[in-house]
Amino acid sequence: MSRYFIIDCDTAEDDIMSLFMLLRYGIDVKGITIVEGNIAFDQEVNNALWALEFINKDIPVYLGSRRPIVKSYRTVENVHGKGGIGDLIPEPKTLKAQNKSAIDAIIDLANTYPGELEFLAISPLTNLALAYLKDNSIAKKIRKVWIMGGTIYGRGNITPVAEYNIWVDPDAAKIIFNSGMDLTMVAWDLITNYTIDEKEWKYIMSMNTKMSNFYISIYEHYRKFAMQYQKMNGNPHPDLITTSIAIDSSVATKVEKQYVDIENCDCLTRGMTVIDYLGVLNKNPNTNVVYEIDKQKFISMLYNLLSWF
Amino acid sequence: MSRYFIIDCDTAEDDIMSLFMLLRYGIDVKGITIVEGNIAFDQEVNNALWALEFINKDIPVYLGSRRPIVKSYRTVENVHGKGGIGDLIPEPKTLKAQNKSAIDAIIDLANTYPGELEFLAISPLTNLALAYLKDNSIAKKIRKVWIMGGTIYGRGNITPVAEYNIWVDPDAAKIIFNSGMDLTMVAWDLITNYTIDEKEWKYIMSMNTKMSNFYISIYEHYRKFAMQYQKMNGNPHPDLITTSIAIDSSVATKVEKQYVDIENCDCLTRGMTVIDYLGVLNKNPNTNVVYEIDKQKFISMLYNLLSWF
Amino acid sequence: MSRYFIIDCDTAEDDIMSLFMLLRYGIDVKGITIVEGNIAFDQEVNNALWALEFINKDIPVYLGSRRPIVKSYRTVENVHGKGGIGDLIPEPKTLKAQNKSAIDAIIDLANTYPGELEFLAISPLTNLALAYLKDNSIAKKIRKVWIMGGTIYGRGNITPVAEYNIWVDPDAAKIIFNSGMDLTMVAWDLITNYTIDEKEWKYIMSMNTKMSNFYISIYEHYRKFAMQYQKMNGNPHPDLITTSIAIDSSVATKVEKQYVDIENCDCLTRGMTVIDYLGVLNKNPNTNVVYEIDKQKFISMLYNLLSWF
Amino acid sequence: MSRYFIIDCDTAEDDIMSLFMLLRYGIDVKGITIVEGNIAFDQEVNNALWALEFINKDIPVYLGSRRPIVKSYRTVENVHGKGGIGDLIPEPKTLKAQNKSAIDAIIDLANTYPGELEFLAISPLTNLALAYLKDNSIAKKIRKVWIMGGTIYGRGNITPVAEYNIWVDPDAAKIIFNSGMDLTMVAWDLITNYTIDEKEWKYIMSMNTKMSNFYISIYEHYRKFAMQYQKMNGNPHPDLITTSIAIDSSVATKVEKQYVDIENCDCLTRGMTVIDYLGVLNKNPNTNVVYEIDKQKFISMLYNLLSWF
Repeated sequence: MSRYFIIDCDTAEDDIMSLFMLLRYGIDVKGITIVEGNIAFDQEVNNALWALEFINKDIPVYLGSRRPIVKSYRTVENVHGKGGIGDLIPEPKTLKAQNKSAIDAIIDLANTYPGELEFLAISPLTNLALAYLKDNSIAKKIRKVWIMGGTIYGRGNITPVAEYNIWVDPDAAKIIFNSGMDLTMVAWDLITNYTIDEKEWKYIMSMNTKMSNFYISIYEHYRKFAMQYQKMNGNPHPDLITTSIAIDSSVATKVEKQYVDIENCDCLTRGMTVIDYLGVLNKNPNTNVVYEIDKQKFISMLYNLLSWF
Repeated sequence: MSRYFIIDCDTAEDDIMSLFMLLRYGIDVKGITIVEGNIAFDQEVNNALWALEFINKDIPVYLGSRRPIVKSYRTVENVHGKGGIGDLIPEPKTLKAQNKSAIDAIIDLANTYPGELEFLAISPLTNLALAYLKDNSIAKKIRKVWIMGGTIYGRGNITPVAEYNIWVDPDAAKIIFNSGMDLTMVAWDLITNYTIDEKEWKYIMSMNTKMSNFYISIYEHYRKFAMQYQKMNGNPHPDLITTSIAIDSSVATKVEKQYVDIENCDCLTRGMTVIDYLGVLNKNPNTNVVYEIDKQKFISMLYNLLSWF
Repeated sequence: MSRYFIIDCDTAEDDIMSLFMLLRYGIDVKGITIVEGNIAFDQEVNNALWALEFINKDIPVYLGSRRPIVKSYRTVENVHGKGGIGDLIPEPKTLKAQNKSAIDAIIDLANTYPGELEFLAISPLTNLALAYLKDNSIAKKIRKVWIMGGTIYGRGNITPVAEYNIWVDPDAAKIIFNSGMDLTMVAWDLITNYTIDEKEWKYIMSMNTKMSNFYISIYEHYRKFAMQYQKMNGNPHPDLITTSIAIDSSVATKVEKQYVDIENCDCLTRGMTVIDYLGVLNKNPNTNVVYEIDKQKFISMLYNLLSWF
Repeated sequence: MSRYFIIDCDTAEDDIMSLFMLLRYGIDVKGITIVEGNIAFDQEVNNALWALEFINKDIPVYLGSRRPIVKSYRTVENVHGKGGIGDLIPEPKTLKAQNKSAIDAIIDLANTYPGELEFLAISPLTNLALAYLKDNSIAKKIRKVWIMGGTIYGRGNITPVAEYNIWVDPDAAKIIFNSGMDLTMVAWDLITNYTIDEKEWKYIMSMNTKMSNFYISIYEHYRKFAMQYQKMNGNPHPDLITTSIAIDSSVATKVEKQYVDIENCDCLTRGMTVIDYLGVLNKNPNTNVVYEIDKQKFISMLYNLLSWF
């Protein structure tokens, strides 16, 4: 039996690989929705179409929000390169985005596959929040929302305590975390423990498949940034680890259901994910928070993807 | 030549009369969009349908947002009565609301009547903001937005400095005031100077038309509240004065184009309309702010409405 | 019987004239306390000493806080000139400031003259707030606090809705307005209605006393600024009007006792004085808010001062 | 050569034991300053005097602030018992507090022992902040400030992300963390890893000295609370561990100098300690943040204290 997914992207290297992994594992991807985030919106759209051309698939790409709901934000070309895959600027040859908006696509797909559709958010939550604001009923129709975002120990990337996806649109995040949807959250300061180290990077170089070579080429910029400025010992896979958990939940070896709220004030801690681990806020748990990952399982899924073709 | 309007309502007594006045003056009302606000959302819908039945018109009623974008709010049945027209609970006999959402109705009508459609917002700005977030292009297609909301001298009604419509959804208001739409703002602390005093109230009672009797019956509760708790010398007409200005802009005798921004923090001044009268924020003027009204012109429009039938 | 005052200054032209008016009217000024505000702190101290030398008085000058309690602020030499009296930089010849801090001076004087000491705050409220935080009992020992600050109609000077003195240290203001002291507030957007117009300015020029010539020389810069950038028809007297009310309360012809609170968030409305004119905050009135001034009485007090010598 | 300390207390069980440990290790405690916090202020004062009588010492106790600088707060008798040492209400027999205020005591001692005085803050930072606001020069005269407060991994106690001492007066904390003082911070979510477990508790019971019996009696309430409501496996020693590090810095086995700022907005994350571990705020490191403790060294210091007499 097939699983139906929407993948929501601010399309940089790790978004592209996440899409590929869904497909490699037989997920029926019903749509790719694009949202403001990592790089210029139009480039994010182009990247998604270009990636589809690379694997020769024609999945509908829907244009979503070009801005956070209320706050201002900034793109992070310094992290991902101008093209989102380094400084190369991808351009699709023939594929085009849909006319239908991402908001309507989300609502329509939720109605077409009620209780089945899953939403993979490796991006700011603006599109999903706007769809929910237009039609609250999708909260119960979407089976699962898999979120790459936030922190579990207050170690962010865009500010000291905030992770970029949540920080970009903390209002959207607050709406979604309090929407009643079935959420799983994979935090930034969790995935930084599971980077591709020197040995793994070299192994991937040695694979020499079309996909492994593609991987090396699109992650090179990000890897350099992560090692130089974020003090990591390799390139991290925030989106791809989240995707691997969405595909096979046993990749997450420790999960707690907790109440998570979002700091959406315009202040030092904007965009922080606040986990009520002691229950002082008197709220029902709303999120499956991932605390540990089976790195070997993830790596073998990655290698499986890279040996696709 | 016809003028095309959407009227956005949180349907209490003054919303109903505003709809009637548009029709009395020959405006082609293309839709009534309902939004969270004064009373329970479903009752607001019922009130709009019931009002249409009273005047025997069938204008499409579209369901909009049942909640502010991010913040929590409260209804004000203490002001308008449980039914929004006092404690009577209106129920429509035959009319029904449309299936199409208010958000889509706004976007579709803006596309059908580009450069012509006008939006009368006598309500929180959630619906218009969500339509704009879904499709930014409507900002240039909508000819005019007439807003009942905010204060010009910091004298609110729901908090010391905030007016109810803006306070309910300050995020929506911030979005709209910074959207580039052509806005006219009629403030609460302006219209409190133009209440229906004892003499005028008695005159209306004496008119004894079907419409004047309807007026008396639906405003009685609000009039009492305004005089007892808001220290006014009669019932005010925030929505109806805004509507009369939308119909005939010469009702506004003093207007200044200024930059208006919205305080959307969760703080003492939530929902305040901040008018940059000295230009210290270095922003282009975005709003026609009304500072004075020709009361006689308004009153004669009201009397004309009440003598309709 | 003498009245005992502390005058708290961020010493620019209007602070100096306020000090002189207290003395002209026989007030026993027990101390001048200096606080962060209009110009560089050390210059404010020098200005106070220099002004005392001009009138040949030796009143103790106490050094207070050089910064707001928590927030950052900026001085406004563009308004008052580098020297606070234009671009001339006053330097005292012989007088020196006291070693005792302003905080201790306030507390000690409150204990020396319990129930009699009055505090004239024509400045940010940092000094008084710090004295109160050190010794809460002064709240009941200080007879009256006269405050130049805030707005009554949301028309500020440093931001659209905030007046400078309150904006500089909104935390101090919040502490004082909620301290239980007997407060009278003279708002910026009140005193802008009572400027020294062309005729009065010329009359003062014609007086040709030592004091009137001094007045002309120290107000010239401020007058230009007010007329050019604040759209006034003359130079305003925020401090001096407050002082004249403190000396003779009949200068204030309309006063209402209301609850006033301060917006102290770091937001668009930082430093706004929120007047609960409808009682929605359910607090006891804490401030005598002045709404109208007898301009002729004020002007005659000013002329009396200018004809001193 | 002696070391000179002020110990700042909101006197509950762990504050008392901290005072005793300073004395056991020969620290010359020049003053005990009391501040708002755990329990009623007057009871905190009584507890300090009562503790001095227990060990037969007469160290000056100075009364500090009874409230945070700006914000409201609440005491936590549920944690420490009504008396701060359980439900017994200590009363001193003969000792009295000083007349001099804590603020002046801090400033005077900093001037008496410039470059030598150390400040042990196992409490909200109100007293130190007010002393600093009165006299900025103490920042350079105080040799070290040892702070029990904040979190390093966003795991608070009073709210999900805030530790009590910082939460009570985040404005004071913001002032101190940005004051230029030499700070060492021992976080709540660090010390929860070093509780007194069942074995240790039983060993202490078996010691049967006057001091060990006193220890058992005053920690019983807190131990129950920590195990029942905070999911710990014993009673923690936030203040006492901080004190042991202040006495012997080798108790802290991992320390990083980082920039720490405080969230002082009135929001979900009020009072959070924000550690700029990636340097994105572009500020100089201001705090020695402790990340690891030599538990055995701490325990042996504790046992040494308990075997005093």
